[in-house]
Amino acid sequence: MKPNFSLRLKVFNLNCWGIPYLSKHRADRMKRLGDFLNVESFDLALLEEVWSEQDFQYLRQKLSPTYRAAHYFRSGVIGSGLCVFSKHPIQELTQHVYSLNGYPYMIHHGDWFCGKAVGLLVLHLSGLVLNVYVTHLHAEYNRQKDIYLAHRVAQAWELAQFIHHTSKKADVVLLCGDLNMHQEDLGCCLLKEWTGLHDAYLETRDFKGSEEGNTMIPQNCYVTQQELEPFPFGIRIDYVLYKAVSGFYISCKTLETTTGHDPHRGTPFSDHEALMATLYVRHSPPEQNPSPIQRPAERSPLISVLREAWTELGLGMAQARWWATFSGYVIGLGLLLLALLCILAARGGAWEAAILLWTPSVGLVLGGGAVYLFHMQEAKGLYRAQAELQHALGRAREARDLELEPQPAPLLEQQEGDRAEEQ
Amino acid sequence: MKPNFSLRLKVFNLNCWGIPYLSKHRADRMKRLGDFLNVESFDLALLEEVWSEQDFQYLRQKLSPTYRAAHYFRSGVIGSGLCVFSKHPIQELTQHVYSLNGYPYMIHHGDWFCGKAVGLLVLHLSGLVLNVYVTHLHAEYNRQKDIYLAHRVAQAWELAQFIHHTSKKADVVLLCGDLNMHQEDLGCCLLKEWTGLHDAYLETRDFKGSEEGNTMIPQNCYVTQQELEPFPFGIRIDYVLYKAVSGFYISCKTLETTTGHDPHRGTPFSDHEALMATLYVRHSPPEQNPSPIQRPAERSPLISVLREAWTELGLGMAQARWWATFSGYVIGLGLLLLALLCILAARGGAWEAAILLWTPSVGLVLGGGAVYLFHMQEAKGLYRAQAELQHALGRAREARDLELEPQPAPLLEQQEGDRAEEQ
Repeated sequence: MKPNFSLRLKVFNLNCWGIPYLSKHRADRMKRLGDFLNVESFDLALLEEVWSEQDFQYLRQKLSPTYRAAHYFRSGVIGSGLCVFSKHPIQELTQHVYSLNGYPYMIHHGDWFCGKAVGLLVLHLSGLVLNVYVTHLHAEYNRQKDIYLAHRVAQAWELAQFIHHTSKKADVVLLCGDLNMHQEDLGCCLLKEWTGLHDAYLETRDFKGSEEGNTMIPQNCYVTQQELEPFPFGIRIDYVLYKAVSGFYISCKTLETTTGHDPHRGTPFSDHEALMATLYVRHSPPEQNPSPIQRPAERSPLISVLREAWTELGLGMAQARWWATFSGYVIGLGLLLLALLCILAARGGAWEAAILLWTPSVGLVLGGGAVYLFHMQEAKGLYRAQAELQHALGRAREARDLELEPQPAPLLEQQEGDRAEEQ
Repeated sequence: MKPNFSLRLKVFNLNCWGIPYLSKHRADRMKRLGDFLNVESFDLALLEEVWSEQDFQYLRQKLSPTYRAAHYFRSGVIGSGLCVFSKHPIQELTQHVYSLNGYPYMIHHGDWFCGKAVGLLVLHLSGLVLNVYVTHLHAEYNRQKDIYLAHRVAQAWELAQFIHHTSKKADVVLLCGDLNMHQEDLGCCLLKEWTGLHDAYLETRDFKGSEEGNTMIPQNCYVTQQELEPFPFGIRIDYVLYKAVSGFYISCKTLETTTGHDPHRGTPFSDHEALMATLYVRHSPPEQNPSPIQRPAERSPLISVLREAWTELGLGMAQARWWATFSGYVIGLGLLLLALLCILAARGGAWEAAILLWTPSVGLVLGGGAVYLFHMQEAKGLYRAQAELQHALGRAREARDLELEPQPAPLLEQQEGDRAEEQ
């Protein structure tokens, strides 16, 4: 490889808002998106919320002259909505479906039916191994009282773990997608601290687009304005994140977002804004080489975010167990009612009441049973993530304590506790 | 590292048959297993079917003086049943839950409720990175008419992909567990071809134990004898598989199984036989170094097994879609009945019949709906695995064709087809 080697990557990301029958002007938007992607000729176009496989097939056909490779990530009842178009051949691909993704009885939210996932593509470009991830996490419907917070944190942890374990031999890691989290949110911090990914918006010196890099903005005619009321400039929940390992350096030369309309001033491609990044990968000069060994001071944010996530998942678990217990009582009540009805029927009295109450009693038992099973599974899923976090936390603390020797670890813990109390 | 470096690994694997209330002598077997593991002091003890977390906690406490680290992999409603005890610190851990795992309405089989998974531990031993996987795939209840075949093949593929993508920087890979597959079964071949793992039983020169290395044998008093009728010597469905990469060489010095009773001639630890392997990892002499580039002839079994798995998943998909369509009709029938009942009730006639038929109609709609959703999800899951297989098949064919140049690829395909027709 040449010493002045440099690889340019043009990347496009968009949450396409492609809900059949519900999303406005879907066909027209898909057509214009296809035209735009063909003209701009990105290296990679990563899309979310392409819920209809027909839309993917349409885009695949339309984009095939420019983008040789394409893949649609299938999961859940509806699908993950994720797909990717690449100018370069895809060497390998796989996906991971998140074990927690909302509640099946929250039909109006619908996330559970989608089977939210993270898709992985491995590309070989100019001798570099590039791991590209695309994802879409659970939506946030109410920021003040977010019943899905624990699920989103667990998803962020699974995403971080998936990237961590599958990218060990990659030279460059790229994650695009709709994380449904603001940059300061717990899940977002957890993801960045655990994987070491950098945020293109925060890193680039050349940003063009919406105020504060927001990807849902009030200027977009498809956005429900009430949802953005607490955020007059909009919110930034779609990301391009990246890192380079093993002697390479990656930087974001330019980052651009659409600004509430398509790049030709027409109606927007979606209710989200598109992200367009130009990344450069170079050989890493020694001073820019990311240090593989974190110093104790660098471990503190990791330890703190792991601890915070652990606590949040604990709260989610308590909630899940409460629902499991509650549905246990409902099952009990249903069984009691059924027993009473049987006694009533056996004695030959009140047949009509028995027949009328039969349906709700069976409903209570079956409905309660389904809810019980679901929340037991939820509690197990949260416990699993919590146990992994606990392990990671233990390892991070051990590493920090080892580095801080000869100061004894318990004393350090004590000091930390004292500081926390003082604050 | 010294040139004559050698690492010895003593590994224990057992499907513990630990179903609360159902498995005979569970407490006694767990106690004796704990005693045995403490005495033998393996590097790693990998267990399956530890369904009760209390059993895991009991073993954890009992084994803590010998095995410093332990982990229980939680998933599904009941759990994955997987756990691990390690003499060495666990550096990292994670797990992957299989997206397909039987049917929730097959309650008597129960696999769906378990959330079958693969657990991963990363250990650092003498400067080596060791990735240890433990898993348990869907049971085979009827070999002649196996309705779970497509699910097991999909699980084998997910397992193979998980190992492939997470072990790229590992020096040694070890997989133990109950695969519920015979060595010649499609899923088993797929797993071995895709990952390059070797079977300890087939590789070792020093095997002691049951006939043909079987891990479910008629001599075991807990085994249901009818199930083994077609196999008078038993079946081999539990495995120790391994490989070394990046300049190392791994061999199985000894492999031992129990033979229908515990090693002290008492009643067995489980209805499965335990596997005890002693593995050695050494620097790889050049001639033993596994070739990273497969020759065309070596690709043929991979291509053939990928093709076969692709076909099997296709059959599973057709079945899943048939069930989805059937349940669609059931929903339709339920809705029709409900409409008739409403009309009947509105006209003021046949109240009793209306009330009586209300429950089955609602039951048809809700039950049909649940079955429809489940099989749609199943079809999506199978399609996902099939698409990944298709991609892998394409890449393998391209690689073979490239290696066989200047012979044109289409001609080769034609020749292959001709040969297949001749046979």
